Amino acid sequence: MRGCPPVTGGEGGREGRLSGRQRPLVDTLSRWVEIPSVSTDPEHAQDVAASARFLRDHALSSGMTRAEVWETAGHPAVFAERIEDPALPTVLIYGHHDVQPVDPVEEWDAAPFVPLERDGQLLGRGTADDKGHMVMHLEAVRGILDAAGHLPLNLKMIVEGEEEDGSEHFDQLVAEHRGDLAADVCVVSDTGMLAEDQPALTVGLRGLAYWEIEVRAAQTDLHSGVYGGAVLNPLAVLADLLAGLHDRQGRVTVVGFYDQVTELTAEERSQLAAVPFDEAGFIADVGAVQGGEAGYTTMERRTVRPTLEICGAWGGYQGEGAKTVIPARAGAKLSSRLVPHQLAPQVTEVVERHLRGALPPGVELDFRLIHDGPFVLTPTDHPAVRLAARAVESVWGRPPAYIREGGSIPPVATLAGELQLPCVLFGVGLPGDRIHAPNERVVLGQLFRGMEAVAEMWRLFAEAGRSGLSR
Amino acid sequence: MRGCPPVTGGEGGREGRLSGRQRPLVDTLSRWVEIPSVSTDPEHAQDVAASARFLRDHALSSGMTRAEVWETAGHPAVFAERIEDPALPTVLIYGHHDVQPVDPVEEWDAAPFVPLERDGQLLGRGTADDKGHMVMHLEAVRGILDAAGHLPLNLKMIVEGEEEDGSEHFDQLVAEHRGDLAADVCVVSDTGMLAEDQPALTVGLRGLAYWEIEVRAAQTDLHSGVYGGAVLNPLAVLADLLAGLHDRQGRVTVVGFYDQVTELTAEERSQLAAVPFDEAGFIADVGAVQGGEAGYTTMERRTVRPTLEICGAWGGYQGEGAKTVIPARAGAKLSSRLVPHQLAPQVTEVVERHLRGALPPGVELDFRLIHDGPFVLTPTDHPAVRLAARAVESVWGRPPAYIREGGSIPPVATLAGELQLPCVLFGVGLPGDRIHAPNERVVLGQLFRGMEAVAEMWRLFAEAGRSGLSR
Repeated sequence: MRGCPPVTGGEGGREGRLSGRQRPLVDTLSRWVEIPSVSTDPEHAQDVAASARFLRDHALSSGMTRAEVWETAGHPAVFAERIEDPALPTVLIYGHHDVQPVDPVEEWDAAPFVPLERDGQLLGRGTADDKGHMVMHLEAVRGILDAAGHLPLNLKMIVEGEEEDGSEHFDQLVAEHRGDLAADVCVVSDTGMLAEDQPALTVGLRGLAYWEIEVRAAQTDLHSGVYGGAVLNPLAVLADLLAGLHDRQGRVTVVGFYDQVTELTAEERSQLAAVPFDEAGFIADVGAVQGGEAGYTTMERRTVRPTLEICGAWGGYQGEGAKTVIPARAGAKLSSRLVPHQLAPQVTEVVERHLRGALPPGVELDFRLIHDGPFVLTPTDHPAVRLAARAVESVWGRPPAYIREGGSIPPVATLAGELQLPCVLFGVGLPGDRIHAPNERVVLGQLFRGMEAVAEMWRLFAEAGRSGLSR
Repeated sequence: MRGCPPVTGGEGGREGRLSGRQRPLVDTLSRWVEIPSVSTDPEHAQDVAASARFLRDHALSSGMTRAEVWETAGHPAVFAERIEDPALPTVLIYGHHDVQPVDPVEEWDAAPFVPLERDGQLLGRGTADDKGHMVMHLEAVRGILDAAGHLPLNLKMIVEGEEEDGSEHFDQLVAEHRGDLAADVCVVSDTGMLAEDQPALTVGLRGLAYWEIEVRAAQTDLHSGVYGGAVLNPLAVLADLLAGLHDRQGRVTVVGFYDQVTELTAEERSQLAAVPFDEAGFIADVGAVQGGEAGYTTMERRTVRPTLEICGAWGGYQGEGAKTVIPARAGAKLSSRLVPHQLAPQVTEVVERHLRGALPPGVELDFRLIHDGPFVLTPTDHPAVRLAARAVESVWGRPPAYIREGGSIPPVATLAGELQLPCVLFGVGLPGDRIHAPNERVVLGQLFRGMEAVAEMWRLFAEAGRSGLSR
């Protein structure tokens, strides 16, 4: 591909140089999505393993010269590479092959693991997050090789199997395979854009702390007639605790919660405000209701402000009909999205202290941090980021916005920190992809354009050379 | 039995005249408990039907001369009778053969439908509520007949199959069988006592209104990274709604909630305070935490004050691990115990109005009344109540306390209202029986004494004659 003119964008890259790979991309992705690689559910452990083998085999058939399943103490990752010439730049692609659970499954229009192609989209768990991105990269490899016989640089992929379950063993995997993973640049493909006609590169990610709590107020469930009115109801205690986490302005009431938050400068805020973003449409597209911290825009609330959300809650009778019970216990899952420079241990400490302080005497509280990952900030003036932006512009026909994403990708912090790699966060997801929710889908045109864009990115990186890619 | 000296109490009635029926009582109850007659669960419909047939057959073998399964549009009831002489008083016994669900089943010490006898107790769903009471009555019949060849009065039993599911078709059943159900006195055996050494007769029951609510704030579940901070989280909305139902004094904040409540006079309060009742022990026995409305005793809170309790709540991710989701919806089951002279329709109206008034704009609320039943008050100066008290005293060795129960038995209102029957609420349950909770049990000594007490009650009722039983 070296020396080729840049591909052009247009209708989903239909006239792109790699358009012959579009149908194979959809077919491969469909077959892969049929493997329900839900990493949080032990019953799907064999499926995650099968997903890894599928990816390994597909990487080899796509032209990677080495592909291996790397076992971990949890779910396996896949490593693949094609080394053309050690003198050329080396890119390490990061992604994951595990997927989110599918609950509530009754809200899907089709079976989550029977991909459904309709209206230029592919519906199914993992289509956007993140199998689609990995197939996009491998089809780009196949297409470049079919045309040129070789890649313009060296390519490596590390595709983990535990991203949706906290990437528990990723740090260890990186520590054990430093040599294999050595590269000049890391390209992380697990993010999104603002709209089909508004490309973006992500330059910041929020971190995450995720807790599970349980309050207990009796040894056993109690009859609401016999005990009702005379004992503390743990569901009422839980409701009080949860309702007390925010004030009427949507601000988190936990003392110390904002202590480490770096407030944006007026200039940073105006830069963020300049990003093309339909605030009302973003909310309306999913039928949601505007909410959040007073004094901030929707874009700020979801990217540069920290949150404290209730991700789940339960207690008492949830079945059909009327069970007159006061439960013994009630629980919830809470999570915070962390922004620079909040750290999970400190936030965990203040949240736990707040909850314990609000607990009525005699009620017991279990509080457990079950998952965390740090925030990420990428320098926008790094040569790799600027070349990636050129590649994106060449396909979409307009320069990408630099955005900060609300979500978390903990391994990015590992790759940036442990391997000292500059990270380019290039993904083609869209706000309406419903990742982590029923009816996840990917817009196929985004994957097709993405395929063209990474081919161009590799060309530009190769042109810059190893020295040109370092700051 | 007429003319026999009253039986004496002591160790669980071991030396009672019916002590030969103790082992058959335990054996029959155990076999009946093995039939999982959970009326709220459609999957158990056949079991409820089997339970009805079991009871019909056992009533006949116990000496009742007529026993029939009465079908309803829901679960079947059982009617049984033994008419000795139309000139004698007729007692109608009320109870139920359906049972509560067993969730959370993992908190049981043994399988809920495999009765376990230990330490003088029988563990299993329905042992106390209410199969134990029905077997107690039938073994008393068998015992009296074995000794005397006839009953001292006419006995009828109506045992419904939908008490735990709202007694939906009981009113219709009563309307259709007025003639069959005609009696002089109704004895309801679905209540309890204060302690093994403190017998009681119940003279008041709280009513019930039970609602299911759901709040919806989006069309679909949302990723907490992408949307977190910018949209209303229905779990947070629900927590606010639930937390707002009570003030810091434990008083229900719903405007109008207390409008119909008749406050007790100072004399009524001091009578209630005189009932032997271990307030601290009552709470401590189940490892619960004192709670409720300021300014009232535990006994008052659980019997003469109304409540608004959360019986269940749900939303978002409840599985293993960390799913970073903002759910589209969240729900709860709420119930009120109603006291004289609160009525379910009025309370339903003010609760719904309160919740809708507290709802943030744009959030949808479903609010449904799914079950209700009126409060009951029985006159303590009725001859039937006073004779029942004598029978209880003859067995337990001390007079029963007159108590008001916190629970609801909607059919009692039907029997008292539609059939104009004086109702004696005689049951032998204990506060620690954990009805509606895991590890339901019955204290067998209570059933044995109860058997002796009802035999004595029939003797006293017969002695009084039909005219002596009316006021």
